[in-house]
Amino acid sequence: MGLRWEALIVNSVDPSRLGRWWAESLGWDASEDEEGDVFLTPPDSGMPEVQFLAVPDGKKAINRLHLDFRPDDQIIEVSRLLELGAVHADVGQDTASWVVLADPEGNEFCVLESRAPMG
Amino acid sequence: MGLRWEALIVNSVDPSRLGRWWAESLGWDASEDEEGDVFLTPPDSGMPEVQFLAVPDGKKAINRLHLDFRPDDQIIEVSRLLELGAVHADVGQDTASWVVLADPEGNEFCVLESRAPMG
Repeated sequence: MGLRWEALIVNSVDPSRLGRWWAESLGWDASEDEEGDVFLTPPDSGMPEVQFLAVPDGKKAINRLHLDFRPDDQIIEVSRLLELGAVHADVGQDTASWVVLADPEGNEFCVLESRAPMG
Repeated sequence: MGLRWEALIVNSVDPSRLGRWWAESLGWDASEDEEGDVFLTPPDSGMPEVQFLAVPDGKKAINRLHLDFRPDDQIIEVSRLLELGAVHADVGQDTASWVVLADPEGNEFCVLESRAPMG
């Protein structure tokens, strides 16, 4: 097969702001072009780039695609993200082990439970 | 930072069908659990898993997040994907160098131009 997954694209009404928010939240390297589009490079070589590209319209429904992140410590990471401006989101997860948050444009993402036992 | 990008989640009304369609289209390894959710593993180690998880409702708007793929040969890959059941999608790309397709549940994705010159 001759297809390589190169990038995940995030449509954004303010890609400069949203991309920089994610760069800070994840600690990933970011670059911005003249139009304000932002390109994030995950630290793990070979991962797809995440690109924040401008669109005129805002988010209107629960996203069909979202990102899951594995934290070293779920409680610490969720607290840190909330301080940065993430908010809790309800997508019907009920009492799941993961925490659903939304970024400043409302894009849902999940902070999974930590791999190692907490105790 | 203590967060690692572990997975991209695709909400799907028929994750078994959609996940298997993507596995065939990309040539990635797939596994399916008892509930019909499908888990794809990209061949490049370290890439996030792509998980197709069941939701009751279908897609209603242009996705805020989508995937970009880099082809060895754009014409060949687009033809192959169309034969598999992808369809052309119009998201306002006009005369862009990339081709916008949609999967069997309507999720848009892009086949970028090939890296190497075609001539």
